[in-house]
Amino acid sequence: MTNSEKALMLHGSWNGKIETVSKCTVKTREDLALAYTPGVAEPCKAIADDTEAAYKYTLKANTVAVISDGSAVLGLGNIGPYAAMPVMEGKAVLFKEFGGMNAFPICLDTQDTEEIIKTIVNIAPAFGGINLEDISAPRCFEIEERLKGLLNIPVFHDDQHGTAIVVLAGIINALKVTGKTKEDSRVVINGAGSAGIAIGKLLLSYGFKHLTLCDRIGILTPSSEGLNWMQQKMTEVTNLSHNEGSLSDALKNADIFIGVSAPGIVTQDMVASMNKDAILFAMANPVPEIMPELAKAAGAKIVGTGRSDFPNQVNNVIAFPGIFKGALEGRAVQITEDMKLAAALAIAALVPETELNADNILPQPFDPRVCEAVSNAVKAHICP
Amino acid sequence: MTNSEKALMLHGSWNGKIETVSKCTVKTREDLALAYTPGVAEPCKAIADDTEAAYKYTLKANTVAVISDGSAVLGLGNIGPYAAMPVMEGKAVLFKEFGGMNAFPICLDTQDTEEIIKTIVNIAPAFGGINLEDISAPRCFEIEERLKGLLNIPVFHDDQHGTAIVVLAGIINALKVTGKTKEDSRVVINGAGSAGIAIGKLLLSYGFKHLTLCDRIGILTPSSEGLNWMQQKMTEVTNLSHNEGSLSDALKNADIFIGVSAPGIVTQDMVASMNKDAILFAMANPVPEIMPELAKAAGAKIVGTGRSDFPNQVNNVIAFPGIFKGALEGRAVQITEDMKLAAALAIAALVPETELNADNILPQPFDPRVCEAVSNAVKAHICP
Repeated sequence: MTNSEKALMLHGSWNGKIETVSKCTVKTREDLALAYTPGVAEPCKAIADDTEAAYKYTLKANTVAVISDGSAVLGLGNIGPYAAMPVMEGKAVLFKEFGGMNAFPICLDTQDTEEIIKTIVNIAPAFGGINLEDISAPRCFEIEERLKGLLNIPVFHDDQHGTAIVVLAGIINALKVTGKTKEDSRVVINGAGSAGIAIGKLLLSYGFKHLTLCDRIGILTPSSEGLNWMQQKMTEVTNLSHNEGSLSDALKNADIFIGVSAPGIVTQDMVASMNKDAILFAMANPVPEIMPELAKAAGAKIVGTGRSDFPNQVNNVIAFPGIFKGALEGRAVQITEDMKLAAALAIAALVPETELNADNILPQPFDPRVCEAVSNAVKAHICP
Repeated sequence: MTNSEKALMLHGSWNGKIETVSKCTVKTREDLALAYTPGVAEPCKAIADDTEAAYKYTLKANTVAVISDGSAVLGLGNIGPYAAMPVMEGKAVLFKEFGGMNAFPICLDTQDTEEIIKTIVNIAPAFGGINLEDISAPRCFEIEERLKGLLNIPVFHDDQHGTAIVVLAGIINALKVTGKTKEDSRVVINGAGSAGIAIGKLLLSYGFKHLTLCDRIGILTPSSEGLNWMQQKMTEVTNLSHNEGSLSDALKNADIFIGVSAPGIVTQDMVASMNKDAILFAMANPVPEIMPELAKAAGAKIVGTGRSDFPNQVNNVIAFPGIFKGALEGRAVQITEDMKLAAALAIAALVPETELNADNILPQPFDPRVCEAVSNAVKAHICP
């Protein structure tokens, strides 16, 4: 049986990867009278008096909604809300197993921005946080920004920020290994979708100065055709030396390549044209922009991918459980840029200087210290 | 510690009466590769090819949304979505403990009919059924009817139909005990809200001919002032002898009283004015329309209430877990009138003739046969 066949078979046997389970017993009339009527009226009244009490008397404090419209699922694209369910259930499993939080998959039968926003606002009361997932760009940017303004619970689009945080963590350590600096390093990001743009923004927040954003059309410039509003906005803060041309042009004398794009589009020649001790994060999945052995043969010093069978795996599970755990426990009303930067630094710090090397710049996803470290870093940066 | 204090304390210790739990383990890279990427792509693709596969590969087949807008919660009224949460969580517990189904509480931060309908349609993909709860009349009627037309999964407003089914089951057995017939019995329902109207409709479906609906204003007639559209509609099929007057007038020579109204509003004189062997379901909670001992002293033969400390408890938990279990297992696209009548008959049949008496017309909520019997009856009446 192939792994694909095994995965399908297992999903058929699970019939849902999560279930809801009672935390209270209802075996007797007395149980029922306490957990349901008439006893349940007491917490209801307490919450009616003070909405804050919902954090004490309901599951809100420790529960995340994993919400998608199925418009940009994995590498599968716009497969809709039903087909997105196994991914959202999987994410709910990761929230529980890695972060100890309840999570429930909500797959939306609409891809209209306004309807998505309204729907999420309407169902928010039960949840302590909203994890947006697999929503296509540029709708994802507006949906997240608007929701942040409308809700007083954390809203976090993991495809953007989870990825960006883990990439930044890896880059922080890659700089240490190579001796490069954030001020002087020239960074090229290929793939100007949700992840690429979020990575770019976070690198700028962290202090990188020289950032070039590429997409299928090559280097994004203010006069590039067909840019969406967010890509257009990014041209104001990237490519400050006003270069034009292809990815190949952009990579000449670059220090860092970050790919969230397509398999095999980076050649060994391109890597060879980069500066010495080049750092590559080739995260196209399952086939990276360039295979690590090819990149290294062409002179790269450090290569990260999205895969668990190569060193330096960029896996969102390193970030999001701790991010939400910290935000929920600290009762953050938003996940801020400061919290994201703190999370990246905390992840990077989990690899001690003594163990740091070109093939070990990120902690393992199953490292039990990760969630707690990220959570604590996030909590420490919640605005009072 | 009073029971109220104990209930509050327990809710604080539970911090949510349900939790989400993983059905699959993710302890190793291999686990992760099967339950999440890349393996999860396989069930996604299978569902993208055929939406039906969602019933095999996700939790949809066995999961109910418990949805309220908090507009008519218990006896507490319009306390809003946050304060409604403990009730919806409690209901979710009952779905699991009595019916073996997953259920998740969704409390809506809107009381606008159109927004409620849209929101529920938008979040429906993850769920196999929708249990509406504690939504005020007459909005609940439109919301349920419209959703039935828009969704191909069962939608069931438990305050209406769950109550109606259990009341009908009790009445079926009460007729056996008293020798009264559905054709000749004169029925008075007091309380023309969601439950009262649903009870009226189901009794008519079952074959009762003489039904009078009362509310605060007395007997509902086509010329009564201030009726909502559903109450108006009910005046076309009730009170066929065109009586006018108060509840007291309505009860003269009535055989059956069904109260879903207010504490203590039925007097012993009113009971005495009813026909011999009167049947009373006095379901105002926690204080019934008339206390059972008073009703019996005034001549009533059978008295049911909503309370577990009196005989003949009308408790929705007798109906809704089995209703949904049958509907979900049988993949019903709707819960029809036939299914409701079958459920009531199945509940009634659980009290054998030999055990049937004035103080034993309904099975106990904790009777383990109940859910299976209701489920089987419902399944047997699903249209192919």
